[in-house]
Amino acid sequence: MTRVGILGATGAVGQRFIQLLDDHPDFELAAVTASEASAGETYKEAAKWRVDTPIPEDVASMTVRATDPDEVPDDVDLLFSSLPSSVAERVEPKFLDAGYVVSSNSSNDRLADDVPLVIPEINPEHLDLIEVQRDERGWDGALVKNPNCSTITMVPTLAALDRFGIERVHVSTLQAVSGAGYSGVSSMEIIDNAIPHIGGEEEKMETESRKLLGDFDGAEVEWHGAEVSASCNRIPTIDGHLENVWAELDEDPTVAEVYEAFADAPTQDLYTAPDPLIETFTEPDRPQPRLDRMVGGGMAVAAGGVQHTDSGIQYNCLAHNTIRGAAGASLLNGELLVEEGWV
Amino acid sequence: MTRVGILGATGAVGQRFIQLLDDHPDFELAAVTASEASAGETYKEAAKWRVDTPIPEDVASMTVRATDPDEVPDDVDLLFSSLPSSVAERVEPKFLDAGYVVSSNSSNDRLADDVPLVIPEINPEHLDLIEVQRDERGWDGALVKNPNCSTITMVPTLAALDRFGIERVHVSTLQAVSGAGYSGVSSMEIIDNAIPHIGGEEEKMETESRKLLGDFDGAEVEWHGAEVSASCNRIPTIDGHLENVWAELDEDPTVAEVYEAFADAPTQDLYTAPDPLIETFTEPDRPQPRLDRMVGGGMAVAAGGVQHTDSGIQYNCLAHNTIRGAAGASLLNGELLVEEGWV
Amino acid sequence: MTRVGILGATGAVGQRFIQLLDDHPDFELAAVTASEASAGETYKEAAKWRVDTPIPEDVASMTVRATDPDEVPDDVDLLFSSLPSSVAERVEPKFLDAGYVVSSNSSNDRLADDVPLVIPEINPEHLDLIEVQRDERGWDGALVKNPNCSTITMVPTLAALDRFGIERVHVSTLQAVSGAGYSGVSSMEIIDNAIPHIGGEEEKMETESRKLLGDFDGAEVEWHGAEVSASCNRIPTIDGHLENVWAELDEDPTVAEVYEAFADAPTQDLYTAPDPLIETFTEPDRPQPRLDRMVGGGMAVAAGGVQHTDSGIQYNCLAHNTIRGAAGASLLNGELLVEEGWV
Amino acid sequence: MTRVGILGATGAVGQRFIQLLDDHPDFELAAVTASEASAGETYKEAAKWRVDTPIPEDVASMTVRATDPDEVPDDVDLLFSSLPSSVAERVEPKFLDAGYVVSSNSSNDRLADDVPLVIPEINPEHLDLIEVQRDERGWDGALVKNPNCSTITMVPTLAALDRFGIERVHVSTLQAVSGAGYSGVSSMEIIDNAIPHIGGEEEKMETESRKLLGDFDGAEVEWHGAEVSASCNRIPTIDGHLENVWAELDEDPTVAEVYEAFADAPTQDLYTAPDPLIETFTEPDRPQPRLDRMVGGGMAVAAGGVQHTDSGIQYNCLAHNTIRGAAGASLLNGELLVEEGWV
Repeated sequence: MTRVGILGATGAVGQRFIQLLDDHPDFELAAVTASEASAGETYKEAAKWRVDTPIPEDVASMTVRATDPDEVPDDVDLLFSSLPSSVAERVEPKFLDAGYVVSSNSSNDRLADDVPLVIPEINPEHLDLIEVQRDERGWDGALVKNPNCSTITMVPTLAALDRFGIERVHVSTLQAVSGAGYSGVSSMEIIDNAIPHIGGEEEKMETESRKLLGDFDGAEVEWHGAEVSASCNRIPTIDGHLENVWAELDEDPTVAEVYEAFADAPTQDLYTAPDPLIETFTEPDRPQPRLDRMVGGGMAVAAGGVQHTDSGIQYNCLAHNTIRGAAGASLLNGELLVEEGWV
Repeated sequence: MTRVGILGATGAVGQRFIQLLDDHPDFELAAVTASEASAGETYKEAAKWRVDTPIPEDVASMTVRATDPDEVPDDVDLLFSSLPSSVAERVEPKFLDAGYVVSSNSSNDRLADDVPLVIPEINPEHLDLIEVQRDERGWDGALVKNPNCSTITMVPTLAALDRFGIERVHVSTLQAVSGAGYSGVSSMEIIDNAIPHIGGEEEKMETESRKLLGDFDGAEVEWHGAEVSASCNRIPTIDGHLENVWAELDEDPTVAEVYEAFADAPTQDLYTAPDPLIETFTEPDRPQPRLDRMVGGGMAVAAGGVQHTDSGIQYNCLAHNTIRGAAGASLLNGELLVEEGWV
Repeated sequence: MTRVGILGATGAVGQRFIQLLDDHPDFELAAVTASEASAGETYKEAAKWRVDTPIPEDVASMTVRATDPDEVPDDVDLLFSSLPSSVAERVEPKFLDAGYVVSSNSSNDRLADDVPLVIPEINPEHLDLIEVQRDERGWDGALVKNPNCSTITMVPTLAALDRFGIERVHVSTLQAVSGAGYSGVSSMEIIDNAIPHIGGEEEKMETESRKLLGDFDGAEVEWHGAEVSASCNRIPTIDGHLENVWAELDEDPTVAEVYEAFADAPTQDLYTAPDPLIETFTEPDRPQPRLDRMVGGGMAVAAGGVQHTDSGIQYNCLAHNTIRGAAGASLLNGELLVEEGWV
Repeated sequence: MTRVGILGATGAVGQRFIQLLDDHPDFELAAVTASEASAGETYKEAAKWRVDTPIPEDVASMTVRATDPDEVPDDVDLLFSSLPSSVAERVEPKFLDAGYVVSSNSSNDRLADDVPLVIPEINPEHLDLIEVQRDERGWDGALVKNPNCSTITMVPTLAALDRFGIERVHVSTLQAVSGAGYSGVSSMEIIDNAIPHIGGEEEKMETESRKLLGDFDGAEVEWHGAEVSASCNRIPTIDGHLENVWAELDEDPTVAEVYEAFADAPTQDLYTAPDPLIETFTEPDRPQPRLDRMVGGGMAVAAGGVQHTDSGIQYNCLAHNTIRGAAGASLLNGELLVEEGWV
């Protein structure tokens, strides 16, 4: 068993980590941290539990620690981070200096040259950037990031399509409110409404997807050359980001070949990895957030509605933004880190 | 005063017609029709009134007529049609044979060569297709159509941008449930959900927009050459379609020039026409359906979020789908028909 | 294995039956019926599947039959009915004449003197009304009903409180849209809204609850003497009815004694029966529909917020309206029928 | 013209004040305050404007002041307060010491013996408590409060019914999210959900209603003797609180007499006062929040669904919680203060 901890365990993503770690065969939750104000409380006191399964009993009574390397037991081998990025920026380096391996969902440093941004089924080889990272930063630990929830919904489908040569991507998102955390979107803002241009989200999709799809030569990642343009919207759904994608391709595959490419997407033999990675739908009005966000236990991507356009193809994809798009993504990176011997 | 009637007056769009005609300075509502089953009832009995202003008293007590030219008084000069298209297909020609001028929101015949598809501020000159229509069909009356609600939201902005030469358009829509009528979208389908690929909607946007932006040489409309690709989604909002648009242009305008083009959009000196036609927003997260659908009394288009992309611009636009996108559009066409002497 | 069939299998409740019967250890689904129009189609063709788990594969390919005793195989021993009550009224007697045992969720005949209205944990002894029923109707089969979804949410808590002597009940409901079936509540009616006085629902709560809590002397059920007054509202939630209850009691229990009574509610040793029957919450703002509707796999009742008032107690309760409140209720009655030897 | 100011002008209720004061014939907005952090900014900079009409231009450019008597110009005669109650508790006394007349929506001090809690149509005579207040507190100014939004929805109907002698009231509420302010209810908490037992709300309804309906003998208010028990729930609606009420009465009026009593509710000859005060609906499924919250410009109460029960009557009522229930209530109290010569 690997002993793991969660940095920032009381928020929306933190709660998902706890839900997903419950009964995990290889990971044992040994430490939960939150802000100084909650330190010393039990987890049940500190967190306003909002997931639709009960708090695991052993976690409910666990004492919350301050988010500080001195407070985390030495025998914890792997940390999952769901800290707000402004906090993560300041705190994660301290844990790395102290030698911890951190699988982080926070958005800081995702684009840094020496930080692997990884989806295990798509670019596991990028993990070797850790060597470069240790050289450059002098860390004993290792920092790996997973992409933003809107990016991770689309990238597996783009990776599958890249056999036809991706030249340009337009993507429009319909994102669930849980992507912004508990206090992120007020009910007064979103009931009977939609909010365009979610701050920072479009840029994340445009950059992270190109890094994820890039080539790693052992020293650096050369970003994929595709042009990506995103328009990101918040809508009144709880969980599940739906995305309309247009891809212009070098080749001209049939609709059947596109579905085949999706079905062929690579998988990983890791506990939390879904198989298949991409569940395809032939009904034109699927996938839909409420009906399809739990495909593959919330870890798969759903795709459907493939059509030809004059200059390529269009389709829709969807993933569960706080499972595949956040806690589950970090967890899977953690499983890969163990598998590859970094923990 | 022009005496007007409404074909299909009890549905969602029919109710909007009644709301908009209340206190209209030039139009007097003289007849309301519905299906055979409701004929003979008062309007209040026949319609389940769901608009947020009370039924005008004189309409409440009006007797509903069958949708048949023999049932409509001869002194009614102009008919607005919000019949289901399957019914309109069968019934509208009878009214035209009988010499009525019909301003119709129904989707049948919108693409017919001899039927003007008109937005008064954008292509009023297309109205002259009525000459061709009368020649070909032998009608005494005249049939003019307004476009689909999702099309009409975007086309004014495209018309404004065409000074820079539109080559290609990608558009993704977030459409309100009222666009499908009262029984169109079940609450079980849409709460905490979104539905991609609304049946038929994408094709309407791709074709109608090109006809609306086309050149009319007195005999026929040559469709605009732009390539348009749409992805249409239903979301849990009541009214107001929000659309993410990417336009590839011949020229390379600055963001400021784009806003200027929007602000310069043409207007019409008609009672229901808004001024300006396009209300622009500089806050990046606007327009939003609940906050902005009533710009220009529900008759203007809201636009904002203009950004450069590698190959053109992207922006968001929004309009009230049952006012500008349906009843208000037909009403405005009716005003133009009167203004131009067709009624 | 008992071979079972579903009458009215394609609707919202029918789909829940199929979901719940999948992997049932004692029941094997052998026949699905729907309206004449769907007869001969596969289930997948006939039903617009909307449950959030996939259609079981063997059911997807099953041929839908007309809802007629001649069409159902003779070796089917038990039928679940989720027909619209207007259809059930006409069709259920035919199946009973033909000797079938029917566990029905349809509202017709629930108050008939010789039809057992049963919640297995609360009044299993009422099942013996079947003797009376067979005598009076000359049926070989047997008809048992479960109560309405809003009734079944409250009655287990009232049964638990009756040790203190219930004199009067006021109950206000916040009901989910799935209670009305797929086409029951239009999205245009309910988004950003609530609808009071759901037709017929208040009367069902006021009568069914008294019959369920009544005494059966072997010949007839004497209804409970409590006065029950209900106010029923529809709100924009998908599943789970939340109810505010005030109970005036003979005795004056402490809040702790009330929670204890809830925790002591009887259970049944049947496959689908939850244990405990009532899950209690001490957080004042629980239970909540989205967080708590799945307690006990959707078969338990959640209760909390117990407070003293000047004349009794008030509290909140909640149950999943299409599981415990519909398909699960009929299924559990079916299990009881088998257990008690009626099948 | 009376020069008025708003304390706490940037929040949800503050924005409603500004909307309602725009074009007010007798009040001129002369000062807006907010927290220290916003002081010195323009109103447009300080407020995230979320009302569905544009910010009045003169207000947009107004400089926001700190909420401090020294910062408000001396020639402002009347202040409206929508401060959070924890702030109001501390700050309102300073303005009263400084001689200002304050019409406050904040919940602190509503039950204080010497603070008039007033609905102008119901208990205008309570305003004379100001004499007592000045004696006891030594203030030059005057403090008047309006009740909580859930209380004010019900009390006009109870006042109308008191001609039949109210003995006991049970009330269950379905409250809109705007009642909790912009950051009050997270979208993650309320979409596809309902939350029972809103903190503090039940107690407010139980106490404030009895004070409002009480007798004032010139020295003190004797609270009404009715027993009131409330159960308060939050649901996913934007504006408009719907309430299910049961009233036990001394007498036994017919349903028609109850509607007549509602229709006879007193009115006030003040600019913002609606006429009638109570709009009655005979359709059983009305009033509904989205359709009926704007009756009387948002200042009337809607009531309907009257039925007999074994021990009294039950009915439903509704009011706009941020207009009649907050900003409009304070504004109307301000108009009464001017009318009665206190300003």
